[in-house]
Amino acid sequence: MKKMMIASLLAAVTFTSVAEIKPFQATEYRRGVFKAVKWQFGPIADMMKGKKEFDGAEFSQRAENLAALSRMPLEGFVAGSYSRGTRALPTIEEDWETFTGLMGDFQKNTQALAEVAKTGDKGQIKPAFIDVAKTCKACHKKFKD
Amino acid sequence: MKKMMIASLLAAVTFTSVAEIKPFQATEYRRGVFKAVKWQFGPIADMMKGKKEFDGAEFSQRAENLAALSRMPLEGFVAGSYSRGTRALPTIEEDWETFTGLMGDFQKNTQALAEVAKTGDKGQIKPAFIDVAKTCKACHKKFKD
Repeated sequence: MKKMMIASLLAAVTFTSVAEIKPFQATEYRRGVFKAVKWQFGPIADMMKGKKEFDGAEFSQRAENLAALSRMPLEGFVAGSYSRGTRALPTIEEDWETFTGLMGDFQKNTQALAEVAKTGDKGQIKPAFIDVAKTCKACHKKFKD
Repeated sequence: MKKMMIASLLAAVTFTSVAEIKPFQATEYRRGVFKAVKWQFGPIADMMKGKKEFDGAEFSQRAENLAALSRMPLEGFVAGSYSRGTRALPTIEEDWETFTGLMGDFQKNTQALAEVAKTGDKGQIKPAFIDVAKTCKACHKKFKD
């Protein structure tokens, strides 16, 4: 009975089976994650630049979101996913160690930002924010067209 | 000096300014989030269906990811974002209370799944998983074309 319920629910809720991942799906996935990253990053950057009033609670929530998102895109960088519908460069595959190192920085630095954001102190937050922005830049410069 | 550094970093890292959000950007954002939701949900659904071997650590990480993602899409449902490039129905605006209620269920149920997933016990996880799958279905049925 329970098994039938699950099967019927799953028929209604479309999903991706890991066994059937196509490069295109992986590309779409990681692009989706980065769309969310960009969206979350925008307002906190505006707050840091003084273009938007600093709101500690919002900043903290968005920093948490970024830290969570930072753990997601890596699995979307799969073989054969660098030729179409993406600005990610094939050098990612060739220099996988550097790439995963930069992804590690992204995770570490957004986590650090989320931690310090809890203080709500703009002065303490600023250097952690700069580290995150630098991480984005470093990876884009090397691995994004 | 620090101000200049930030300005220069931000010039390199593109971002969305909240002040300039266009409906199209909001649509792209929420679709990106849901792409990530679908990707994360796939393997845990496969594990529950027995199509993929149960891996407690992977399940737990994906459930955490889903809980984090569940807190993101709501802000992407903005006025004027239901006519193009989306399967979200305009009835979302007309029945905002029901919609936000279902989004709340999504957040609550994925959080509950993430909590119980820490046990690594498939039997305990199953009902929480079913609740999540039902929540997806309920909202898609009512608000997705």
